[in-house]
Amino acid sequence: MNRTIHAEPLSRTSFAPFGDVLDATGDYRLINEGLCRRHHDLARLDFGSGCAGISIFNAEPRGIPYEFDLVERHPEGSQAFLPMTEHPFLVIVALDEGGAPGRPRAFVTAPGQGINLHRGTWHGVLTPLRAPGLFAVVDRIGDGPNLEEYRYSAPWRVTT
Amino acid sequence: MNRTIHAEPLSRTSFAPFGDVLDATGDYRLINEGLCRRHHDLARLDFGSGCAGISIFNAEPRGIPYEFDLVERHPEGSQAFLPMTEHPFLVIVALDEGGAPGRPRAFVTAPGQGINLHRGTWHGVLTPLRAPGLFAVVDRIGDGPNLEEYRYSAPWRVTT
Repeated sequence: MNRTIHAEPLSRTSFAPFGDVLDATGDYRLINEGLCRRHHDLARLDFGSGCAGISIFNAEPRGIPYEFDLVERHPEGSQAFLPMTEHPFLVIVALDEGGAPGRPRAFVTAPGQGINLHRGTWHGVLTPLRAPGLFAVVDRIGDGPNLEEYRYSAPWRVTT
Repeated sequence: MNRTIHAEPLSRTSFAPFGDVLDATGDYRLINEGLCRRHHDLARLDFGSGCAGISIFNAEPRGIPYEFDLVERHPEGSQAFLPMTEHPFLVIVALDEGGAPGRPRAFVTAPGQGINLHRGTWHGVLTPLRAPGLFAVVDRIGDGPNLEEYRYSAPWRVTT
């Protein structure tokens, strides 16, 4: 099997099976006497029996080509990653196939793009491409297990 | 009355009466095999009868000195501003004094700092200091009015 994945630019259409792209494109409302565009309520949030929280993640930057064999999912909630820099980051996701992840896909963000992973979506760990790897994360705060991990039988290699 | 306000650096202590500072300082949990620090659940979120949503704001940058006479508050929910750049922004807030805002205070953020305004906190409109003025905003999505505005009898002037 070809285990090389070409990273695609992130777009709403291509990312729709996995989650939401959070950026300043598309419809908006003008607020603050015309000086601010509000792109309203862009994420399908779902925290199950828990509630929303905001955490700050500070992750080590990675390089491309990037190799990985581990993905994870959060069965009880969505998870949004909002970069606090204008650096691109790598997003690895996979559709579920009968309880395990299928072939992964990889996306590279543009400056000003965040993502919201829908509840239960298989994804790679947070992979910034430049320092500082600073993100605001909106995810579920609550009791009970909310992490499943899956290790592929061999590594995947993400290239441009 | 002296209507000049000196902008202060944003810190958790000084901002505590108004909201939370969201940054990568303080305690964390190591996740993702040690490659990511999670500063966990930093914001006191409260959406009343509504629920959390994520919107993207794109605001015109302002300069310092900055003059304003209008503040607002959201009685039904907290509101977090998470910059999607490393540019500083200006935060104007005021304590409530019997239903109207008192003397305002102004803070300038450092790179990597976001804020969460507690429910009902008087604040100025979003004031980035550099372009692009891009922010992810976590606030209340729900029915019913959630905006009160107050115009001071004369403008305030924020300086460094």
